[in-house]
Amino acid sequence: MSVTSSVTRQDLADALGALREAPPLVQCLTNTVAAGWTANVLLALGAAPAMVDNPREAREFAAIAGGVLINLGTPYDETVRAMHLAVAGASRSGTPWVLDPVAAGALGWRTSVAHHLLREARPTIIRGNASEILAMAGGDGGRGVDSVHSPEAAVAVAKALANKQRSVIAVSGPTDHITDGSQVVRLSNGHLWLTRVTGVGCALGALMAAFAAVVPDAMIAAAAATATLTVAADAAARHSRGPGSFAVSLLDELSLLRPADLAERVSIS
Amino acid sequence: MSVTSSVTRQDLADALGALREAPPLVQCLTNTVAAGWTANVLLALGAAPAMVDNPREAREFAAIAGGVLINLGTPYDETVRAMHLAVAGASRSGTPWVLDPVAAGALGWRTSVAHHLLREARPTIIRGNASEILAMAGGDGGRGVDSVHSPEAAVAVAKALANKQRSVIAVSGPTDHITDGSQVVRLSNGHLWLTRVTGVGCALGALMAAFAAVVPDAMIAAAAATATLTVAADAAARHSRGPGSFAVSLLDELSLLRPADLAERVSIS
Amino acid sequence: MSVTSSVTRQDLADALGALREAPPLVQCLTNTVAAGWTANVLLALGAAPAMVDNPREAREFAAIAGGVLINLGTPYDETVRAMHLAVAGASRSGTPWVLDPVAAGALGWRTSVAHHLLREARPTIIRGNASEILAMAGGDGGRGVDSVHSPEAAVAVAKALANKQRSVIAVSGPTDHITDGSQVVRLSNGHLWLTRVTGVGCALGALMAAFAAVVPDAMIAAAAATATLTVAADAAARHSRGPGSFAVSLLDELSLLRPADLAERVSIS
Repeated sequence: MSVTSSVTRQDLADALGALREAPPLVQCLTNTVAAGWTANVLLALGAAPAMVDNPREAREFAAIAGGVLINLGTPYDETVRAMHLAVAGASRSGTPWVLDPVAAGALGWRTSVAHHLLREARPTIIRGNASEILAMAGGDGGRGVDSVHSPEAAVAVAKALANKQRSVIAVSGPTDHITDGSQVVRLSNGHLWLTRVTGVGCALGALMAAFAAVVPDAMIAAAAATATLTVAADAAARHSRGPGSFAVSLLDELSLLRPADLAERVSIS
Repeated sequence: MSVTSSVTRQDLADALGALREAPPLVQCLTNTVAAGWTANVLLALGAAPAMVDNPREAREFAAIAGGVLINLGTPYDETVRAMHLAVAGASRSGTPWVLDPVAAGALGWRTSVAHHLLREARPTIIRGNASEILAMAGGDGGRGVDSVHSPEAAVAVAKALANKQRSVIAVSGPTDHITDGSQVVRLSNGHLWLTRVTGVGCALGALMAAFAAVVPDAMIAAAAATATLTVAADAAARHSRGPGSFAVSLLDELSLLRPADLAERVSIS
Repeated sequence: MSVTSSVTRQDLADALGALREAPPLVQCLTNTVAAGWTANVLLALGAAPAMVDNPREAREFAAIAGGVLINLGTPYDETVRAMHLAVAGASRSGTPWVLDPVAAGALGWRTSVAHHLLREARPTIIRGNASEILAMAGGDGGRGVDSVHSPEAAVAVAKALANKQRSVIAVSGPTDHITDGSQVVRLSNGHLWLTRVTGVGCALGALMAAFAAVVPDAMIAAAAATATLTVAADAAARHSRGPGSFAVSLLDELSLLRPADLAERVSIS
């Protein structure tokens, strides 16, 4: 028996159409490993990246940006200060923002930074793998960017976290789960090679910030970002020999993907 | 009626030949997003990149380097200190340097850093989009790396800035304009995909520093860098499916481009 | 007359098999230019990268990691503090670590940092070009990442350094030399394009940390990393047009390379 999702195929196609029509400016405070790749993913899709991650400009820019990404992949004292300021700026001006607590649970400092950010303001979306979401809910974490817990096991915890934080929670894995605390959307496109290219999860967080800038419903924004990336990945995998050519094709497919194709190819429930 | 440019096709071919014959060492103080890509663009063309951007080594290295790039894409306290020191080192030793004031006008701190750098020393070349050049001349800025002003509208301002700073000013756009305050060179190769790959403008600034290291005339250096990148882009676009494969092909074409091809294919006036 | 190497083809194949069977977690404290590329090289081969390079988490993580890379390409005050802490953590917990003293000899501060690190603890492997190895042994250095000394000339110095530090020394060049102070292994696969892609040497250091995590013999680890990268490069060069497509193919070939192919294709003496 199939349960009808609260997010429809047409919602996803409309979101992609909206992004292409009014390219959002996405402020990324992200890690040094994935910064270039993240910018290229945003540009390939049609969004405008701006990596403004210093404490002197981060708050000011969060009021101009359409969406903000806070990614804890490689935190430093100066960039963490910028993150607090960007979150303050986003909150004050109503800019949607996404928290990606990379390796939360596995490392002490960044876990504490992530919890502080959650206390200061309400992220529109929290994105992570199962271990990271468990860590944000107060549980045990994983080892670095790898997830040692299954996404399915994290869904109950994610729903509780969504209700507590009043945020949409997106749990990445072979099947992606997105919840606002009551509804759960499941998306199951994608390819194993997504785990063999650095920064794919980081770029997904940036895409969520991009979609949140153009669609008011955070469930749709998170689902559209996930669907766009993974449906493009399906196409990219078909003409790739390994993770190198796959990453290149993924950028091509993101730029070629049409809203109608997205609606047709997405595996949603 | 066609106006003869002060920079000839043969000047551009000679500049590329000179760079290939004596690969210059280019010190880049650039942003974390474009650093890897910029190094690959320099290497593909045949130059040697060195990203020495800490305050303890930046001045010392600017005396060894053939050219220096100062790019304000992701400024931090420590790297901005290094930029001041690198500019001091370059000035003292006569090393040509390029200022790329990314997002000047759109953000307060970096605009002020860029103006300070201009007061301390005379850059060989200032490179930016129309908004950034307007901001350096004291006018209104743009939104991040996007240009909201046409390059053409910025030419008059660029000429005035060139005369005031005694620098060559390069204004990037669909048509690139390069001026020393009296002459204006117009270059119109390139492809829309250049705007869909992060750091292309940043890499162009690095190429200008590379050419300035091997040819004494800064107009020729700025024009040769622009022509090389955009002529290679024309070739790259012909066997690409999107921005991912285009970026890869651009590196290939930069390494394959021969001086004679550059002279033949460049659209200059 | 051919001298039999202390490291056999089968040793290399077994090391690659071991890495694929138990993917090691590799902590990289590396430069901002090569960080993304290094992570992709590790992922392509099957290892798990974690770029934990801040002073608040570096020591803690070095106890969890299977191997640690310390690369001095773009040192900053904060990341250099993290390097000292990571080395302390690795030493205490017995985690193998690799020192890559990029541009040692050419620049004062980083040379002094590298010498300090050597006094604090014994790296499992020191990797560099001939100039960098000479600088670590107290001699004259090179210009940036370029090597101005031949690897062959550095072998005698490398043997002395290996004996003094009780580390394995790997000298990169057209022929790669690896020594523990008595034995010298020579590897001569690879392609000129390896010098036209940024961060290849940096990624090689990371691969050495990955292999050191899975094989106890540091000579085999250093040789397996070198052989894997350069044998994959041979294959990549065959279907590439230039350095752009070569870098992409190199990632593909790293993921496709089988232990038996490595044993068959490696040129070792």
